[in-house]
Amino acid sequence: MLKTNQNCNIGFVGLGVMGKNLALNLADHGYRVAGFDLDTHKVQDVLDTEAAERPASSTEARIIGSSSMEDMLSNLIKPRVIVVLVPAGSPVDAVCDGLIKAGLEPDDIVVDCGNSQWTDTIRREADYKEKFKFFGTAVSGGEVGARFGPSLMPGGDADSWKYLQPMWEAVAAKVDANGKPIVSNTPGKPVTEGEPCTAYLGPNGAGHYVKMVHNGIEYADMQLICEAYHLLRSLLGYEPEEIGKLFEKWNQGVLNSYLVEISADILQQYDHKTGAPLVDMILDSAGQKGTGRWTSISATQMGVPAGIISESVYARALSTLTGERELAASKLVADLDSGEIEAEEVEKAIEEALYCAKICAYAQGFQLMRAAEKEYDWKFNFSDIAKIWRGGCIIRASFLQKIADAFTENPELENLLLSDYFADAMASKQAGLRKAVVLAAQSGIPTPSFFSALAYFDGYRSEVLPANLLQAQRDYFGAHTYERVDAEPGQKFHTHWQEEGRPERKA
Amino acid sequence: MLKTNQNCNIGFVGLGVMGKNLALNLADHGYRVAGFDLDTHKVQDVLDTEAAERPASSTEARIIGSSSMEDMLSNLIKPRVIVVLVPAGSPVDAVCDGLIKAGLEPDDIVVDCGNSQWTDTIRREADYKEKFKFFGTAVSGGEVGARFGPSLMPGGDADSWKYLQPMWEAVAAKVDANGKPIVSNTPGKPVTEGEPCTAYLGPNGAGHYVKMVHNGIEYADMQLICEAYHLLRSLLGYEPEEIGKLFEKWNQGVLNSYLVEISADILQQYDHKTGAPLVDMILDSAGQKGTGRWTSISATQMGVPAGIISESVYARALSTLTGERELAASKLVADLDSGEIEAEEVEKAIEEALYCAKICAYAQGFQLMRAAEKEYDWKFNFSDIAKIWRGGCIIRASFLQKIADAFTENPELENLLLSDYFADAMASKQAGLRKAVVLAAQSGIPTPSFFSALAYFDGYRSEVLPANLLQAQRDYFGAHTYERVDAEPGQKFHTHWQEEGRPERKA
Repeated sequence: MLKTNQNCNIGFVGLGVMGKNLALNLADHGYRVAGFDLDTHKVQDVLDTEAAERPASSTEARIIGSSSMEDMLSNLIKPRVIVVLVPAGSPVDAVCDGLIKAGLEPDDIVVDCGNSQWTDTIRREADYKEKFKFFGTAVSGGEVGARFGPSLMPGGDADSWKYLQPMWEAVAAKVDANGKPIVSNTPGKPVTEGEPCTAYLGPNGAGHYVKMVHNGIEYADMQLICEAYHLLRSLLGYEPEEIGKLFEKWNQGVLNSYLVEISADILQQYDHKTGAPLVDMILDSAGQKGTGRWTSISATQMGVPAGIISESVYARALSTLTGERELAASKLVADLDSGEIEAEEVEKAIEEALYCAKICAYAQGFQLMRAAEKEYDWKFNFSDIAKIWRGGCIIRASFLQKIADAFTENPELENLLLSDYFADAMASKQAGLRKAVVLAAQSGIPTPSFFSALAYFDGYRSEVLPANLLQAQRDYFGAHTYERVDAEPGQKFHTHWQEEGRPERKA
Repeated sequence: MLKTNQNCNIGFVGLGVMGKNLALNLADHGYRVAGFDLDTHKVQDVLDTEAAERPASSTEARIIGSSSMEDMLSNLIKPRVIVVLVPAGSPVDAVCDGLIKAGLEPDDIVVDCGNSQWTDTIRREADYKEKFKFFGTAVSGGEVGARFGPSLMPGGDADSWKYLQPMWEAVAAKVDANGKPIVSNTPGKPVTEGEPCTAYLGPNGAGHYVKMVHNGIEYADMQLICEAYHLLRSLLGYEPEEIGKLFEKWNQGVLNSYLVEISADILQQYDHKTGAPLVDMILDSAGQKGTGRWTSISATQMGVPAGIISESVYARALSTLTGERELAASKLVADLDSGEIEAEEVEKAIEEALYCAKICAYAQGFQLMRAAEKEYDWKFNFSDIAKIWRGGCIIRASFLQKIADAFTENPELENLLLSDYFADAMASKQAGLRKAVVLAAQSGIPTPSFFSALAYFDGYRSEVLPANLLQAQRDYFGAHTYERVDAEPGQKFHTHWQEEGRPERKA
């Protein structure tokens, strides 16, 4: 039953959208792939597409269809590398068990390229240690990214990385010496020069964790752009097309990014059916797959302030309450205070606000990763993380180069806000953020993430916060004790608030 | 070894601060208690206090010390009720196992009165079903509350409630016909009339869930008061004592509450050692036990916008970064825009802001409980929940009567904001919240929870949110599909954003 070994470099279990495209990407870079999927139609579809896209120079199929996991394993060069791209959760464990039964050996490497939770990756790496090497690699960039150059976030044991590195570096997105993406979205004409958007991030769940934070930041990035759009529309009465053109202009500056670029495109589109701006025909009820939620929860658990990300997750939840919002819109009265506004001034303020809030969101994301490395005993290279996000992934943007530079300059940087570049950016543009917040508050426009960003910036730079009153309250009703500013850290004090000997009130 | 049965009504395992005080409370109300603790000093301390506080009319000890769990069980009237007040987590399971070994019977009721996570209560109730009845009751009110009248939040099977109800209603805090607490903090002189601050909340973890939400709301309540204090101090230069007196004044109005009352007291206190306002000698680094975090996480998991609670949790985390904040204070430049402010106007605005933000925080908390009852198959009486919070607990306040009334009037109320009373309150006072946000933004004062409250109010009453752009973005990079405003709900649409047949741009 088994064919002669086809000498394939890599195997695939799971040939859905992501699996198919990643396999074709590998083929374009000269790798031979053995692919398996329970759904034989999917397997056939990949083979058909490979044939259709095969360059004239290739004489034979670069992807081999496998009828079983055993079949796939028999066609791989050892030690074998198998990519698993199935839905996160129990399907991954099911595939691992299937591969063990099919004959995996201890040196074989199974790479979970799905959106798994990092804790599952940590667990699997430990559980499967005796049977094979479990490795994680999160993929960002969607379908197009997987096909032509994703950002790849690997995490697992360092020895296994040796086998993955050449393939990952080949297929990952590429950026030039200035950090700009080098793009070729043409089958058979892959990008072969430039810096690859992948790097070894650390052991076990490190890669999946970084991907989760990427997604949390993505939620914030998207929410901020939407809030900027909402402000421009509500404050200035701009039509979507006008805002789209303005976003195109902003995309030439420090806000240059994939998300601003596609938002500019979206806002200039018209609906075939009604002729209305397409965005107006789309129901304002946002879906989510869950990774933003995970980021928010991780930040909460580890005590890292990530309000911008959390508010962005909540904003999606609030948007789904379409019926209640309709009710509330008629029931609740707005008492507004719109002053005079000058269009150019407001445009500039919102552009600056967007940049400042973006900086704060990334500062929160990187602080979260700093806390995670302590918690899980990893050692991140934050410059690398910023670098591999410059291309391929959804949050790719010019300013990631600035983040990379900030961490290259100071790998121990506690917070992006403390780097010269970003401290200066905040100094010079915060007036815009303040103005945007003021306008939103006065005009009744909901901008939870802009609000959160400003509160975070002002809180972070506050030498004294009113948490002293909070500690007094906790000691008053719960005897939780407090520290004093004039005592050793850790020394606990308690006041008998309601007894003799209590602190005095003035007579 | 076993004494003759002492005919005690209730047993205690755990005689720490909460256990001791709750036991004495029960004794004051005429119940006989059998108490056990691994630490015999604690047992003796309870017996000594009971003797010292015993009213002349009592001829014998009302609390019996037990040398073992068997001893305690032997002295209880059947079916036996045993309160467990040990640290949450594995200690509770250890006690349950110990009680089983000591001879618990299937009709016996073990009540976990600690701050357990509701999921543990659900699990324990199911796991121990064959051996005994596991019941939960969360307690709020701290030491003083436990001693003289806590708010008790019970959850477990309805049959067991029959045995607990008389005791819980006896010892719970009491309110009069107007919902005002009837207080007697005198040993031996318990309050015996009025409405008790306890009610059956539902099965298994319902009580512990409600307590968790209480604590999340408490975090928000406290943070809002602290932000109000911070604004008054920073904007108007008021000294703590002045603010304390202002809080006393506010405490006569709609903000009347335990937390405002104690904050007023705290702010008028002076430090013995230095003569400075005591609050200034307290380190502004806030501690937390974790329940606020749980509330935030639960809201995130269930998709209920609870930004005010989350920001309050994050604010505590941010406050602990004392070293970074000091660094940031010197490194980061503030570009402020303080306009003219008139003291009386600002005082009024902050008072109104505090009330509006409080309303929003409670709206979020009750929405969270509404989502939880669907998730866990409970059926809350929201009016009851508001009523039992009117006395005993940390968040006790006059306005809880208004909340109770709103839910009595409409038990299906989707959101507190939609009730007449609170819609009117928001209508008439929101100008203050807007003004407070504007002043904070212009003056660089961090008020994350005030900000979040305003964004929530404006978002909730928005008929259209910019989530339509967000859905377009998700469809653009991830083919996640969207719904249309002119199609059936649930019908999915996808645009081929970059292909022929895509929506048109205007030529």
